[in-house]
Amino acid sequence: MKTAIFPGSFDPFTLGHESIVRKALPLFDRIIIAIGANTKKNSTFELEKRTQWIKATFNDNSAIEVLPFKGLTVDFCQAQNAQFILRGLRNPNDYQYESAIAQMNQALNEEITSVFLICDPAFAAISSSIVREIYLNGGDVAQFLPKAMKLDA
Amino acid sequence: MKTAIFPGSFDPFTLGHESIVRKALPLFDRIIIAIGANTKKNSTFELEKRTQWIKATFNDNSAIEVLPFKGLTVDFCQAQNAQFILRGLRNPNDYQYESAIAQMNQALNEEITSVFLICDPAFAAISSSIVREIYLNGGDVAQFLPKAMKLDA
Amino acid sequence: MKTAIFPGSFDPFTLGHESIVRKALPLFDRIIIAIGANTKKNSTFELEKRTQWIKATFNDNSAIEVLPFKGLTVDFCQAQNAQFILRGLRNPNDYQYESAIAQMNQALNEEITSVFLICDPAFAAISSSIVREIYLNGGDVAQFLPKAMKLDA
Amino acid sequence: MKTAIFPGSFDPFTLGHESIVRKALPLFDRIIIAIGANTKKNSTFELEKRTQWIKATFNDNSAIEVLPFKGLTVDFCQAQNAQFILRGLRNPNDYQYESAIAQMNQALNEEITSVFLICDPAFAAISSSIVREIYLNGGDVAQFLPKAMKLDA
Amino acid sequence: MKTAIFPGSFDPFTLGHESIVRKALPLFDRIIIAIGANTKKNSTFELEKRTQWIKATFNDNSAIEVLPFKGLTVDFCQAQNAQFILRGLRNPNDYQYESAIAQMNQALNEEITSVFLICDPAFAAISSSIVREIYLNGGDVAQFLPKAMKLDA
Amino acid sequence: MKTAIFPGSFDPFTLGHESIVRKALPLFDRIIIAIGANTKKNSTFELEKRTQWIKATFNDNSAIEVLPFKGLTVDFCQAQNAQFILRGLRNPNDYQYESAIAQMNQALNEEITSVFLICDPAFAAISSSIVREIYLNGGDVAQFLPKAMKLDA
Repeated sequence: MKTAIFPGSFDPFTLGHESIVRKALPLFDRIIIAIGANTKKNSTFELEKRTQWIKATFNDNSAIEVLPFKGLTVDFCQAQNAQFILRGLRNPNDYQYESAIAQMNQALNEEITSVFLICDPAFAAISSSIVREIYLNGGDVAQFLPKAMKLDA
Repeated sequence: MKTAIFPGSFDPFTLGHESIVRKALPLFDRIIIAIGANTKKNSTFELEKRTQWIKATFNDNSAIEVLPFKGLTVDFCQAQNAQFILRGLRNPNDYQYESAIAQMNQALNEEITSVFLICDPAFAAISSSIVREIYLNGGDVAQFLPKAMKLDA
Repeated sequence: MKTAIFPGSFDPFTLGHESIVRKALPLFDRIIIAIGANTKKNSTFELEKRTQWIKATFNDNSAIEVLPFKGLTVDFCQAQNAQFILRGLRNPNDYQYESAIAQMNQALNEEITSVFLICDPAFAAISSSIVREIYLNGGDVAQFLPKAMKLDA
Repeated sequence: MKTAIFPGSFDPFTLGHESIVRKALPLFDRIIIAIGANTKKNSTFELEKRTQWIKATFNDNSAIEVLPFKGLTVDFCQAQNAQFILRGLRNPNDYQYESAIAQMNQALNEEITSVFLICDPAFAAISSSIVREIYLNGGDVAQFLPKAMKLDA
Repeated sequence: MKTAIFPGSFDPFTLGHESIVRKALPLFDRIIIAIGANTKKNSTFELEKRTQWIKATFNDNSAIEVLPFKGLTVDFCQAQNAQFILRGLRNPNDYQYESAIAQMNQALNEEITSVFLICDPAFAAISSSIVREIYLNGGDVAQFLPKAMKLDA
Repeated sequence: MKTAIFPGSFDPFTLGHESIVRKALPLFDRIIIAIGANTKKNSTFELEKRTQWIKATFNDNSAIEVLPFKGLTVDFCQAQNAQFILRGLRNPNDYQYESAIAQMNQALNEEITSVFLICDPAFAAISSSIVREIYLNGGDVAQFLPKAMKLDA
């Protein structure tokens, strides 16, 4: 069984994230969306909310799980028997950051391979940090988020 | 069956290319290394040689095929029942070029997904064009090529 | 009167180019789409065709002119009384190339200012060179071109 | 009337900012330099000082206004009847950040167009953050700032 | 005597840093590894530890000194009679950051020249910040650090 | 004796090249400006002219030699007892190209170290290819070239 971890803080999960997961479905038997529960970084949306929104987005698909995680991504992969880490790329900066992380992860555990998909152009500008910034300034961010997500719910 | 096309001119096939294919093996059931037989571009190494070298490199693996191709990559994918295009990324420039190609390919055939792996850091500087340049200037390029390749053979 | 030159080889003119011109309309009183008639570079589409297609694309708008040009862009600006050069940006590589050209143009004629607009994300992957490549390989490129353009006409 | 907002924290306003505004003058009838009064981010220089310095820099020009703002840039544009957002670009990283912001702003309000000018090469290395760092370490930053600004005043 | 400052926070000093210093030895008579003792930024490893580790790494080489420093790098250069600042480059983002710093330093003191070496590809993904992140999450970082460094010592 | 090769086609040698050489003088005892005499690439300016112009630019300095070269740069270094290759960097694209070349050169001969200096911001937009383009279109390129160079001489 081919299992991939899709790690992130997803604060919030966006249309870009959704698009990467849907594109990855034919590639893997099981995709675990792993929400980093980093205690140091203050999140804008609570872990419980983020979990619930992502589950609602994919509630039609049994190949997708949503789990919180702490610690090293490669350790979480091993605990979940996942051989792959799935990541989306939006621009050259993403590439630079992600390629360094991928190479360090490979150094830590060479059994785990990072697999990259490229974001749909329509979603390439959407980043959680800009969405948060707009949200915190009172803007309407619904158009950047999966339909199943209701921020006010 | 998950089939990926790994297209390129492979003039010549390098350690970097080999590394991408080996990393991709757990991801796909069948990988077709598709040598672009572009009539406009003069190659340094003949198509027959390139085919023979790549076959020698992977002669232990029945999941890998080596085929020449002409025309659009997405058309070749369809002809081969391949749902994936496999590409390696070495640096941000590669990303920019590859992401544009991937988006155009998706526009031409949205059933086909481009999948990216990141080159091993030890091979990230190796490009076929620099290898050719060194070769044409009389330098020894053996260290940049798979062991099974004998340029003088 | 604020006049901008939008120079390029437009081989062919794409949806991306069209989008930049339409976004620039509120900024300028007159936009001259200047088709570089570079004798050294072989074009895929004839100058006459390119001119006709662009005119058809904007035939509703008297603020837009289509003219061939040779020589330095800054000299053509001066001949046309244009104070601005309009350019679109699709990615960081475009930026690097365009910023060098803009700085050299400013060194040649400091009265002329280069103005940049950012391409719509949906069109950011479309480049004339990839469109040509697809066209020459028999692919259908209509979806990347303005509606008024009929390649076979 | 063509009105552009030039938003930023301008902590401090540098020669690079001044250069962008002066280059933009022939393009717009009115330029509002909008100082982001972000309460979360601690500024090194007080809002009042920043306002006063920028006013002193352009005190000869009635087309330029200096105003504080809070909230979304697109909302401020609408409140000021500005159809354009003006931004300077210094390097490919700037481009990547700015293009994402511009695309999100366009998604929020498609009536507003972001317009980019390229920084003079002599000023491309000057960023407010490096200037602050030098200032806080006791270095002389006068050469990076408009003449009218007296940090000690 | 050709003296270079190699400034950084070295939190921690990595194989990448060691590689840059060893590559630079034939270029300079004296290299001062200058540990930025920035009071604002909390370090993960104490200044004393960092100093001791770097000294242990190069204890065979009298051309290398290890010193803490505060304030502007160019002022520290002058105090140490150093004409050169040595920096390593790992990727295009490093280049963008470092070139801005180098140009500002040259503006502050044009007698001092920044000299860049390119990181060995095997070490290009190693950054102190990723190493810290792995360390704080309980991962084994020994493979990213010089042999003489014992984190638990 | 510290000897560096500064290789290039210098077609033509620009203010940017001159600036890199002058910045490198305190670093090396001898700098050989090595003009690549590539037979495949047609040059705009003849090798003899290029040699003569560069000699005129540095005729005051006995530490600088000007020589043509063919073949691999590392072989030329060895023939000249040069331990260093000097290169200038203008932007992130330069970095990507140069770092790949430097890593390949190191693989071919690990005794030779590539040393990078960053171009003065005022000259960062000047590339030989843009200068050639302007020259061939009848523009005045004198401002981009060292004073000693007379294109019409």
